[in-house]
Amino acid sequence: MIIASAQNPAIKAIRALAEKKYRQETGLFVAEGEKVLARARSLGWVPETLVTIGATEPWGTARVLEVTPDVMAALSAQNNPPPLLAVFSQKWQDTAHARGLWLALEEVRDPGNLGTIIRTADAAGAAGVILAGQSCDPYGQECVRATMGSIFAMPLLRLPVTELIGLCRSWPGEIVGTHLLGAEDYRRVYRQPTLLVMGSEGRGLSPELAAACSLLVRIPMRDGIDSLNLAVASGLMLFEARRLTE
Amino acid sequence: MIIASAQNPAIKAIRALAEKKYRQETGLFVAEGEKVLARARSLGWVPETLVTIGATEPWGTARVLEVTPDVMAALSAQNNPPPLLAVFSQKWQDTAHARGLWLALEEVRDPGNLGTIIRTADAAGAAGVILAGQSCDPYGQECVRATMGSIFAMPLLRLPVTELIGLCRSWPGEIVGTHLLGAEDYRRVYRQPTLLVMGSEGRGLSPELAAACSLLVRIPMRDGIDSLNLAVASGLMLFEARRLTE
Repeated sequence: MIIASAQNPAIKAIRALAEKKYRQETGLFVAEGEKVLARARSLGWVPETLVTIGATEPWGTARVLEVTPDVMAALSAQNNPPPLLAVFSQKWQDTAHARGLWLALEEVRDPGNLGTIIRTADAAGAAGVILAGQSCDPYGQECVRATMGSIFAMPLLRLPVTELIGLCRSWPGEIVGTHLLGAEDYRRVYRQPTLLVMGSEGRGLSPELAAACSLLVRIPMRDGIDSLNLAVASGLMLFEARRLTE
Repeated sequence: MIIASAQNPAIKAIRALAEKKYRQETGLFVAEGEKVLARARSLGWVPETLVTIGATEPWGTARVLEVTPDVMAALSAQNNPPPLLAVFSQKWQDTAHARGLWLALEEVRDPGNLGTIIRTADAAGAAGVILAGQSCDPYGQECVRATMGSIFAMPLLRLPVTELIGLCRSWPGEIVGTHLLGAEDYRRVYRQPTLLVMGSEGRGLSPELAAACSLLVRIPMRDGIDSLNLAVASGLMLFEARRLTE
């Protein structure tokens, strides 16, 4: 049976996941597009529900809903709805193993920024991303889309800022905060394992978190400019941290 | 006289600048926010019109329109309308002088990306940004906002891709294209003056432009990933190009 109505209860339940409230209640999220879902599959994810236009190959235990293009358009956040969309259970890590390169973000606000940062952390070979304090939801549609599939690859951890400070205290390697007043230039070799800590878009690092870092660095900029976009700054730090480690 | 109606002809003319068509017809654009406009002032820009809630200090020859908060809200693209908004004439450069560091973008599509890239180029001390081919409009509101004031600092040049290829042929220094199949790692010293060339979000560099580069580099990424966000990749290249030059 092909579902032709966006009022179908199963379809309405998926549409509701555009709201953070329903994502939190259900622990589910939506991802779409063939390339993105191919990455999910290659990483061993299995969706709860697979929504498709036309026939598709089975994917583990996923329930398959075949829909009309109109229904897919109602579900999709994209201008050109893809032929494939899926609903997954969110995954959250309990701990950050102190190996490799981790990135911690304090109160990141913008979902597009967060998605781009998760994508960049993945590309740079990071072990995971920590969301500290009031963060936007990485499983929201705008963020998931901006990750370009990296939402499935990057371990995610969320914790209060006080717990991130506790993690910093026990971290065996370098804890590097990026800060306007950092004493050191960011271009240097970082002791491993490396924990990079970035502040929020508007305010930067909180004084408490800055104090928990073992090293504060700054990215030199032209006079008159005091900040970079958070995703760009995170990209510079991630690629700097792995510059000499490969 | 305080303008209290968003239907006032002068206000309607400013609102129309949200559309590319009217920006092209008039050669004007809108910027808002005290910090952003302070940067414009410090760089010697003088607006055609200054829109303000309450009194403000004069700014050169600018016509001043005092408006109510409701009218400012109708003009502003921000959720919290700022007390100050201004209309400027667009500035376009005729040529790229072959000194320092230039960034050329081929057919950039996303205004948020473009604004972030202009902001990053400014921070990295670039001499200017070249928009080649069908580019989104840097003077649109979303882009202007993402530049965080750098729209006033970065010389901008637009030209057909064929002319950018001509510029590459006469460029006295290195012309560096970022490319998936680049033979060289991006971490190296670039001969000055340096012209960085980045392809569009979806397709990357066109074969014609790639062939016009003197060097094609790639940014190494984790297996399974084939690209970075364009603004992040541009940031890595810009800061790499100036890494050893200061």
